[in-house]
Amino acid sequence: MYHIISMRDFSRDEIDLILNKAKQLEPIAKGKKSDLLLGKILATLFFEPSTRTRLSFETAMKRLGGEVIDLGALEVSSVAKGETLADTIRVVANYADAIVLRHPREGAARMAAEYSRVPIINAGDGAGHHPTQTLLDLYTIMRESSLSGLRIALVGDLKYGRTVHSLAYALSLYHADMTLVSPKQLEMPDVIKKDLKKQGAVIRETTKLEDVMGDIDVLYITRIQKERFPDPAEYLKVAGSYRVTEELIKKASDSLIIMHPLPRMDEIAPAVDRTKYARYFEQSFYGVPVRMALLVMAMETT
Amino acid sequence: MYHIISMRDFSRDEIDLILNKAKQLEPIAKGKKSDLLLGKILATLFFEPSTRTRLSFETAMKRLGGEVIDLGALEVSSVAKGETLADTIRVVANYADAIVLRHPREGAARMAAEYSRVPIINAGDGAGHHPTQTLLDLYTIMRESSLSGLRIALVGDLKYGRTVHSLAYALSLYHADMTLVSPKQLEMPDVIKKDLKKQGAVIRETTKLEDVMGDIDVLYITRIQKERFPDPAEYLKVAGSYRVTEELIKKASDSLIIMHPLPRMDEIAPAVDRTKYARYFEQSFYGVPVRMALLVMAMETT
Amino acid sequence: MYHIISMRDFSRDEIDLILNKAKQLEPIAKGKKSDLLLGKILATLFFEPSTRTRLSFETAMKRLGGEVIDLGALEVSSVAKGETLADTIRVVANYADAIVLRHPREGAARMAAEYSRVPIINAGDGAGHHPTQTLLDLYTIMRESSLSGLRIALVGDLKYGRTVHSLAYALSLYHADMTLVSPKQLEMPDVIKKDLKKQGAVIRETTKLEDVMGDIDVLYITRIQKERFPDPAEYLKVAGSYRVTEELIKKASDSLIIMHPLPRMDEIAPAVDRTKYARYFEQSFYGVPVRMALLVMAMETT
Repeated sequence: MYHIISMRDFSRDEIDLILNKAKQLEPIAKGKKSDLLLGKILATLFFEPSTRTRLSFETAMKRLGGEVIDLGALEVSSVAKGETLADTIRVVANYADAIVLRHPREGAARMAAEYSRVPIINAGDGAGHHPTQTLLDLYTIMRESSLSGLRIALVGDLKYGRTVHSLAYALSLYHADMTLVSPKQLEMPDVIKKDLKKQGAVIRETTKLEDVMGDIDVLYITRIQKERFPDPAEYLKVAGSYRVTEELIKKASDSLIIMHPLPRMDEIAPAVDRTKYARYFEQSFYGVPVRMALLVMAMETT
Repeated sequence: MYHIISMRDFSRDEIDLILNKAKQLEPIAKGKKSDLLLGKILATLFFEPSTRTRLSFETAMKRLGGEVIDLGALEVSSVAKGETLADTIRVVANYADAIVLRHPREGAARMAAEYSRVPIINAGDGAGHHPTQTLLDLYTIMRESSLSGLRIALVGDLKYGRTVHSLAYALSLYHADMTLVSPKQLEMPDVIKKDLKKQGAVIRETTKLEDVMGDIDVLYITRIQKERFPDPAEYLKVAGSYRVTEELIKKASDSLIIMHPLPRMDEIAPAVDRTKYARYFEQSFYGVPVRMALLVMAMETT
Repeated sequence: MYHIISMRDFSRDEIDLILNKAKQLEPIAKGKKSDLLLGKILATLFFEPSTRTRLSFETAMKRLGGEVIDLGALEVSSVAKGETLADTIRVVANYADAIVLRHPREGAARMAAEYSRVPIINAGDGAGHHPTQTLLDLYTIMRESSLSGLRIALVGDLKYGRTVHSLAYALSLYHADMTLVSPKQLEMPDVIKKDLKKQGAVIRETTKLEDVMGDIDVLYITRIQKERFPDPAEYLKVAGSYRVTEELIKKASDSLIIMHPLPRMDEIAPAVDRTKYARYFEQSFYGVPVRMALLVMAMETT
């Protein structure tokens, strides 16, 4: 069995295996018929909403010929009647061949895996992990740029941003050259930076995005999410710190690609969408082949 | 590519093509197995609820062997986080082979089509268009009566009723003889009447439904929808103006059929359901073959 | 046509037929591919939430190769606009090959059957019937113990508990020896007990669960549901009256199995899950083959 809980559980070889499997399945994500998972059922359990992630998994499963059952809105389920997560998981594992779980509590996916007789795929557990987002980010870099010799700027909230911590860790396995761009208050925590360096990453820090535009292959910008801040006042000081505009990308190297996990608010001006640098919609598409790869690997080994 | 935005985009020949395609697909709507759209995915994006329209599309897609993904309730999606419609459309177009969109804002479907690399099917945009409802109304008349030499009464709110404006326009292409039956306050706007006449329709107006019962082939009655009125007081003056009863249909010509887009409130007495005139449940069924035809045409030409 | 409304509509022979059909289909519930209901559509109409029952039906249908359409949350549907149940049923029957209905009003399923041209399967109608729960309970006993010569204790709220009334009736057809264990205030109504005896059941009553542990084959314990009590004060007096613990099951006969319709609150201690007596998760799984049997029988005879 093959639970997918955290990027920390994967070696670089295992990551490469997943990315290559995704590449092999990409034509199916684009519409080629498949019955690889015909007769299989995936259950989606979203204890907090994430329409995009849910739809991406659902698309992946259905393109592979499989079926999806969705627990639906929380407030109407047995969970609302006070059922434990352990019981919910045991019941749903009776219906499905794999379970995608999103939960607001850190560690929920790991705990669910202990009670499930079918694979658990973590689709985000609070401030914890969200490995499928990281894998699709890596896949986007592999497909649209290169994971080898990569120079990347990670921009925005590097303190609370779960997406970015997980991605930085994975990129350190590829010895990436990372420039961390954030307001002083939102710098990446020291403990994480130390860990990245230990893995083999080169780390640089700055508060000025414009200074690095000519020296990077990938610009990865994220939304500064109000809901991650313990104190709303702290949020207001830094909201809107960075914005990718037509003006800014004049300084970009020719091969630069711009990524964003979406949804975006005003981090990227709409005018940038039409430039050759934009890859955030491709990135969102790549969620499908990556999740296909995980679904196939999870259910093949059941 | 084949967006379906407004009845105004179709010539009479194109409408006939859709209706004939629907007729050809009708056995599948009744349960005959099909894999015409096997491997295809339809996304349903309902920015305002319309269970009936959504279920009808979902049924059409699944009867054809295809799959459906649903964005689900708005308030839990990225849209709630402030994402633009353009971004939502671009992301969902990465997952699906066609998108059914319902939106409260007039013009939303046309705008969505500009950003989508897959066909957009408009399932209603506010006070704007709802072409699949009009097409199923035409199909019902074709199957249960006749589009040629048609004498029809359109009854109810002819001022705000979007359904009726769109149907009247389409019927004018068939040179229908239309009797407009409404309270004075809810008469069809002059600009629309002028346009209908220009297209070839014969137009008559009255406030008394009973006077026309013997001279029509189709009685099309609609609900007077409170939510379309700018002023609730105006609504109260006209609510319940017309009601089809057993008494009323005694005056009907033998071949009359009664249509209603459903849901009905008290516009048609339940006793009428058992008469030979009732066709509103058949009409709701015909939504399936008509939407099948549109889905097949949209995805075949992708 | 084959509506499934109430256990009272089935003879013991018909029940045995369903249970044997379920046994035959059980491998499909466990993942064996099937296309028995390929091309068929099941509509789920839940006028009150019951995620577990809905998912179980959905799983059953999809494992059999069929498709599901769901009316979704009530408050957003035509029902909210005031449509009658009769109209909703007539419209949905145009889309689907069978309808699963859950409704808060007793008698709703019977009424729906009058208006539907496709089979109605009752998934619970208020204080009325919930035959598929009873059938899965019987199936669990058949698979994990024995329906013949059965000694069973029914424990908890025997006054308001719909599940238990329906199960007791069905067990009386198998001449079961039943021990009714409840607080005085929640005893089974006399009229039901009389009826059970007339059918051939042996009935005993006690308030003390520990006294019967050595003399039963099946312990069936239910949640005391606050929402079934007309008076909350009455509920508080009896909440938590019975609890199955490791201590208690020391007195159990070797072949005892413990059942619970789930979700559980604190009626069964988590430590009991790991014992050989626990069967409540198997019981929840058995909902799938039983519902498969009903779906196949309903749609084969359409």
